[in-house]
Amino acid sequence: MSANAAGAKALVFDVFGTVVDWHGSVAREVRGLAREKGLRVNAAKFAKAWRAGYRPAMDRVLRGEAPFEKIDVIHRAILEDVLKQFKVATLTEEEKARLNLVWHRLKPWPDAVRGLKRLKAKLIIATLSNGNTSLLVDMAKHGGLPWDCVFSSDTFKLFKPDPGMYLGAAGMLDLKPEEVMMVAAHKPDLRAAAACGLKTAFVKRPLEHGRGTALDLASEPEFTVNAESFLDLADQLGC
Amino acid sequence: MSANAAGAKALVFDVFGTVVDWHGSVAREVRGLAREKGLRVNAAKFAKAWRAGYRPAMDRVLRGEAPFEKIDVIHRAILEDVLKQFKVATLTEEEKARLNLVWHRLKPWPDAVRGLKRLKAKLIIATLSNGNTSLLVDMAKHGGLPWDCVFSSDTFKLFKPDPGMYLGAAGMLDLKPEEVMMVAAHKPDLRAAAACGLKTAFVKRPLEHGRGTALDLASEPEFTVNAESFLDLADQLGC
Repeated sequence: MSANAAGAKALVFDVFGTVVDWHGSVAREVRGLAREKGLRVNAAKFAKAWRAGYRPAMDRVLRGEAPFEKIDVIHRAILEDVLKQFKVATLTEEEKARLNLVWHRLKPWPDAVRGLKRLKAKLIIATLSNGNTSLLVDMAKHGGLPWDCVFSSDTFKLFKPDPGMYLGAAGMLDLKPEEVMMVAAHKPDLRAAAACGLKTAFVKRPLEHGRGTALDLASEPEFTVNAESFLDLADQLGC
Repeated sequence: MSANAAGAKALVFDVFGTVVDWHGSVAREVRGLAREKGLRVNAAKFAKAWRAGYRPAMDRVLRGEAPFEKIDVIHRAILEDVLKQFKVATLTEEEKARLNLVWHRLKPWPDAVRGLKRLKAKLIIATLSNGNTSLLVDMAKHGGLPWDCVFSSDTFKLFKPDPGMYLGAAGMLDLKPEEVMMVAAHKPDLRAAAACGLKTAFVKRPLEHGRGTALDLASEPEFTVNAESFLDLADQLGC
């Protein structure tokens, strides 16, 4: 293990994009539904538009402009907008409810389950996600994600990057901030965790937004670890 | 599955006594420590005295007479009293801190892990314990308890039998109360859960207080299921 990473007892994981492939999973289900219903929809663009509404909705909550809501509720409100934007008017209420739960069925990246099992053998592994608990539990059961513990936005009634999320997880594990490492594919999430005293692991997910979208994948010396995958992370942490 | 049990999607488990053997585990560690330090202590009585302080301390919090504290803190305060009561004055601070964490290392009953694995294949399984999160996570890692999710007193800043514990777990799972089954070896816990609309499973643990202590093990028609073990529970739930 690198000297900097020593002392980490728990890893807390961002989930959407870091552990699971939201873009591929959502696009695949939208494509299937479109075929079934005879709709003409660009499924990849639909997935991106749905995801794009997510951060602004959470920011309204963090600024106190909207009450706390579970991501399931936020996703559903965005879905209504996106369906209008894509001129899809023929889904039944049942089809919309089922489609909204696609976020409970997102598929893990190919290295995720194997990597998590190796990490779990030596360290506590937990989610620290803006998703809600039921979403994260369903996703873990679908995908075989072996979490020791699920921390979610509804555990704390907050969203990342509020410091209460990072410090809340450390507090519930009775660990000092520096004994916890935040694992994410997103630099702002890691920088917010680092500002709370957590260690950080940047994991590169070049296909998070599908093919053909350039992402900032540069390693940064400010992070405790920069890794190509969860298997690389396990190697670097000596797991 | 019995008709009454149909519709349960998640099982939430009392932990101390229901999943793990607190009496045997604590007595064993106390016996080991006494041998090491040359103390004369009745380890079985010591374990019972330590446990006996637990319910009154939680009740003080529920009545608003004391602020919410994690069970680790409550256990430590009771330990100081019990050490006095048993005239043990020679433990160092480090030995007391280590002994206090015995509750993180309680051993599962012999049927627990196998039963939980069968139940987990078809249903969500979560703790719903007055223990704190770090205690429950450590215990699961020590004992191989395969929880989907950990709900604890510090998830809700409450203790059972406050209705906010039972309804809080159902709410975080986005399930109706009747879709959740409380599993416990203690009838008052089950009755409090039933009053909130949850289904109930009474699991008999005749050795919870060690040998020679008579417990009320009678099946009750008021409970959805009465079971001899987690394997029997899995049979009855068709898992």
